[in-house]
Amino acid sequence: MNGSEHRSYTLHEIAERFGGEVLGDGTTRVARIATLQNAGPAALAFLANPRYLQQLGATSAAAVLVGGAMRDATTLPRIVCEDPYVYFARVSRLFNPPPSAVAGMHPSAVVDPTASIAPDAEIGPQAVVGRAAVVGAGVIVGPGCVVGAGVVLGAGVRLHARVTIYESCVLGERAIVHSGAVIGADGFGIAMAEGQWLKIPQIGRVVIGPDVEIGANTTIDRGAIDDTIVEEGVKLDNQIQIAHNVHVGAHTAIAACTGIAGSTKIGRYCRIGGGSGIAGHLTIADGVEISGHTAITKSIDKPGVYSGLYPFDTNRAWRRNAAYLRHLGDLAERLRELEKQVAALERSKS
Amino acid sequence: MNGSEHRSYTLHEIAERFGGEVLGDGTTRVARIATLQNAGPAALAFLANPRYLQQLGATSAAAVLVGGAMRDATTLPRIVCEDPYVYFARVSRLFNPPPSAVAGMHPSAVVDPTASIAPDAEIGPQAVVGRAAVVGAGVIVGPGCVVGAGVVLGAGVRLHARVTIYESCVLGERAIVHSGAVIGADGFGIAMAEGQWLKIPQIGRVVIGPDVEIGANTTIDRGAIDDTIVEEGVKLDNQIQIAHNVHVGAHTAIAACTGIAGSTKIGRYCRIGGGSGIAGHLTIADGVEISGHTAITKSIDKPGVYSGLYPFDTNRAWRRNAAYLRHLGDLAERLRELEKQVAALERSKS
Amino acid sequence: MNGSEHRSYTLHEIAERFGGEVLGDGTTRVARIATLQNAGPAALAFLANPRYLQQLGATSAAAVLVGGAMRDATTLPRIVCEDPYVYFARVSRLFNPPPSAVAGMHPSAVVDPTASIAPDAEIGPQAVVGRAAVVGAGVIVGPGCVVGAGVVLGAGVRLHARVTIYESCVLGERAIVHSGAVIGADGFGIAMAEGQWLKIPQIGRVVIGPDVEIGANTTIDRGAIDDTIVEEGVKLDNQIQIAHNVHVGAHTAIAACTGIAGSTKIGRYCRIGGGSGIAGHLTIADGVEISGHTAITKSIDKPGVYSGLYPFDTNRAWRRNAAYLRHLGDLAERLRELEKQVAALERSKS
Repeated sequence: MNGSEHRSYTLHEIAERFGGEVLGDGTTRVARIATLQNAGPAALAFLANPRYLQQLGATSAAAVLVGGAMRDATTLPRIVCEDPYVYFARVSRLFNPPPSAVAGMHPSAVVDPTASIAPDAEIGPQAVVGRAAVVGAGVIVGPGCVVGAGVVLGAGVRLHARVTIYESCVLGERAIVHSGAVIGADGFGIAMAEGQWLKIPQIGRVVIGPDVEIGANTTIDRGAIDDTIVEEGVKLDNQIQIAHNVHVGAHTAIAACTGIAGSTKIGRYCRIGGGSGIAGHLTIADGVEISGHTAITKSIDKPGVYSGLYPFDTNRAWRRNAAYLRHLGDLAERLRELEKQVAALERSKS
Repeated sequence: MNGSEHRSYTLHEIAERFGGEVLGDGTTRVARIATLQNAGPAALAFLANPRYLQQLGATSAAAVLVGGAMRDATTLPRIVCEDPYVYFARVSRLFNPPPSAVAGMHPSAVVDPTASIAPDAEIGPQAVVGRAAVVGAGVIVGPGCVVGAGVVLGAGVRLHARVTIYESCVLGERAIVHSGAVIGADGFGIAMAEGQWLKIPQIGRVVIGPDVEIGANTTIDRGAIDDTIVEEGVKLDNQIQIAHNVHVGAHTAIAACTGIAGSTKIGRYCRIGGGSGIAGHLTIADGVEISGHTAITKSIDKPGVYSGLYPFDTNRAWRRNAAYLRHLGDLAERLRELEKQVAALERSKS
Repeated sequence: MNGSEHRSYTLHEIAERFGGEVLGDGTTRVARIATLQNAGPAALAFLANPRYLQQLGATSAAAVLVGGAMRDATTLPRIVCEDPYVYFARVSRLFNPPPSAVAGMHPSAVVDPTASIAPDAEIGPQAVVGRAAVVGAGVIVGPGCVVGAGVVLGAGVRLHARVTIYESCVLGERAIVHSGAVIGADGFGIAMAEGQWLKIPQIGRVVIGPDVEIGANTTIDRGAIDDTIVEEGVKLDNQIQIAHNVHVGAHTAIAACTGIAGSTKIGRYCRIGGGSGIAGHLTIADGVEISGHTAITKSIDKPGVYSGLYPFDTNRAWRRNAAYLRHLGDLAERLRELEKQVAALERSKS
């Protein structure tokens, strides 16, 4: 729990803000969000997934959020709404607002005198802000962050502890970056010459749009020459790798441990499952959904769901079947041969 | 080498502590652990894996640890024991004890005055300890760590350099966390509303049991509402991602680069290979072993070994066979058709 | 852009340094590298990949680098060279030289008095350098780095911000390490004894050769007893995991998100695609190329290209085909059976 003091609200007050129909005692007062299973007093729980229906009967919640189909599934005070998950999200944001910046620089922070820091920005302990960096209104730079020379942090950006932004990168307004993320490290640009790898200077930037969220230990490399781009509203989970000159379209969401190789262009409103990989120099259309643990090796030009994951099994069954994978071509040839023989037999019969 | 001064022990002294049978000169004195291959004077080596048997003849070790089957495989002074690998582990711990906390806070550390720091705890240089955090007896907070508000570190916890613990998380006694690990960042909770992702506040904590070890750059997200739980004795390698509301059962060991999606429950004493992925909302039974690079997409209710990895081959052979993967259904249908035709031919023959 | 002031050069001056044939006006002066697409005035662009040929006609570059086959593909001033990509790399390095160390220790850095710091080395703000560490000539230790006790950083090493080097590890001359990388954390050494995992002290080091580059958030574990070795000229992308006692041969390049398990020996001049995994205790020959997202489970003793990636498809097609994977053995048996029956039918016919 965040430990912040919550205001409390009646169901009527909540419905006034966010809509929905109040059933039962609308003066019921709630002070926090909870799961059906672990709700305590003054808690508002929600049923978004029918698989948790049996928990509804046993919940200690003071009130619940339910969809239309479940309007009569409980006698508890409730708000009936169209999409209980989204409704829950809105109420939770009401109860748990993000912290505001506490204006000022911690005395242990090292801020270059040429940096421009908004008066209401917060620079945490042990942070470092480089030459000519621009820190916008209401920004929070967490403890131990390193903000490189010439970086621009738009208004309302929040860097959690220990984020690194290399020189010249740009973060749009309200972007949130979690601990350990590294924005703007050199892309993997090397050329083989006379038996040695020659490092190619990475002189592009990373430019991140507004309302982007970047998970813990995610890495986004700076462009080799032009910039790496992450458009507005993109949501990146933890431990994602975005290589140089990738372009991620607006409102795309990518789950953890996914890697995207250099110069690939991902469309808008894509959803990419965890542990996936996308090869370099591809174009992925808007609205593409990629299953977890899938490797994409060719461009995709139509929306739809794409998958390519080896189905697991008991080790014994897997071993038996996987062995044949190395002979699939032979199996197919033997099948073709048999088809010919059978056709001949049938002809000779008639 | 850790550079610490080691005490030396005779084989007799070691056997007195840890058991086993001393053969050869039991007054042989050893001062360090080494591999058979690179052992120098006063080194104790061990043979746990028969594949290294040929190294036994050439070793410069002063003495060796062997299993019963190998009791006569050398004439060196030796301790014969049941499990030489476990025995080696115990002796190595004797020679290489973990460092103790050097009581006190480095003057460069920033410790909130409301934090409660045990008198014998060590707070390293450039560390940050937040409001109302509780740092237990003998804890070591390494250089550059950020310990959030309200965090509780049990007695004997060791945070290596540059660990981040977000607010309100709890680490059990003697937990070890390696550099770059991030405990308690927000889970990937988003809801699509009117063409935008709405961030769902992540208000649960991460609660970690005693004797857990967490590898470098591993990330464990805080719960969305309830807590993310890692039970006692769990061992997590590097670059693992544990999503919100995962529950990892006691004494489970997970190898590097594995990702576990939200709300999945992993049993006790599981062993999960590197590079694996486990989808969300699953239940994995106690004692399940998962091979490396396997994606688990359904719950597993019985112990056993589970696998699902594409067998590699030369690129040429792989290309030839993999092409048929996209036509497996067709192959199976053609096979069915042939079976019918052959059955008809056999009927007509008789 | 790095924001540094560039000198400008004529094409003649460039060709004098790096060779090649100047066509068109050799007094054309260029001041920066650019892509064909986004080149502005005084920019030198290059055509290394024929797929960008159509951009050559529309470019605003002042001059271009082309290969012999493209010598007449443009009328712009140009340098014709054997390998335009390598040539571009050299020119880019001329325009974008790496920053030099600014001698001195930032007052916020915490440097142990027993550490040996070269007079011309740069120790950044908030950095920590431990007991008896050795920092060579011209080294840059970035902001927030933690350099452990006894670490040796060879001349010209560059640690970007927030790098961690555990005690006693060694980095060769000119090694570059990006933010968030962790060198020398404990390997995943555990032994099961009486229902508990026993931690095995990891007393080896990491020893890294000259001219190695290590990407952001990559982790390289210290050896269990002997050292983990990364030889000269190795290039590691981001988020790679190198386990204890791995040995990576010289000039091998590994793309992002790859994991290499313990004690595996990788040859020289290997190229390993992103998202791959290599099991423990294997030997990979020199010159092996491994495709992305491939898991290597056996040693490879010959150079060549190796692959093993599940081909993706639409979810519908994948589902249909993948279902048969679990019955490949059965399919093969049915095929064998049919072959027998058909052979019998053919015999009976004659």
